[in-house]
Amino acid sequence: MNEEKFLEKVKFDSNGLVSVIAQDYMTKNILMLAYANRETLKESLQTGKMTYWSRSRKKRWQKGEESGNVQLIKEVYIDCDGDAVLVRVEQIGGASCHVGYDNCFYRMWDKEDFKITGTMMFDPKEKYGKK
Amino acid sequence: MNEEKFLEKVKFDSNGLVSVIAQDYMTKNILMLAYANRETLKESLQTGKMTYWSRSRKKRWQKGEESGNVQLIKEVYIDCDGDAVLVRVEQIGGASCHVGYDNCFYRMWDKEDFKITGTMMFDPKEKYGKK
Repeated sequence: MNEEKFLEKVKFDSNGLVSVIAQDYMTKNILMLAYANRETLKESLQTGKMTYWSRSRKKRWQKGEESGNVQLIKEVYIDCDGDAVLVRVEQIGGASCHVGYDNCFYRMWDKEDFKITGTMMFDPKEKYGKK
Repeated sequence: MNEEKFLEKVKFDSNGLVSVIAQDYMTKNILMLAYANRETLKESLQTGKMTYWSRSRKKRWQKGEESGNVQLIKEVYIDCDGDAVLVRVEQIGGASCHVGYDNCFYRMWDKEDFKITGTMMFDPKEKYGKK
């Protein structure tokens, strides 16, 4: 692997982050939008599992490290101006959203109000336990 | 339309922007990742055509206003924490990328190097003219 060549093309923002879109490689549904820095992007490419940077917790975060719902990388793309990365992944457990839905975009705007279009896959209280 | 109820749920960042993923509603390919502020998001919902905020040019920008490749909105989603919007669109002209490809993620990382996976749809020089 020669990840450096990939990383050279990425334009990290002033906070050292790049937007990462995770898409289910089978259904092509969009699972989530998150952020990675150079280190977590490199780790992702090396391990084949998506690792992000949490802006709220200000720490490295491997997707599924707590829930078990890891994302196995199948394909990686970069956009025209290098400030967005697209990963097509196999979403273990069938759910990427911490709320328990299959993906984070589970609310569709239906002219007057939101409609739940996602599928609930797990109970977050059971999955993550009480904190 | 009651766009205010939608806009209330959106968490704009410190620059007043939110990330918007545009996805082809037929192929489910990801077309682009761009940004909108409150005004351009409201305009998008009202007109049914995607309008963004250009961070580099610092101005409102209706997708396709110059190329003719407008994006007709079919579905709009918001993510769990409200800081990302997903729009499923009909991409007029079959191309969203200013470089001429069908979408902006036309380069796939293939372990050692990038591979062009996108389809060239137009010649940017002809489309946009000489400047």
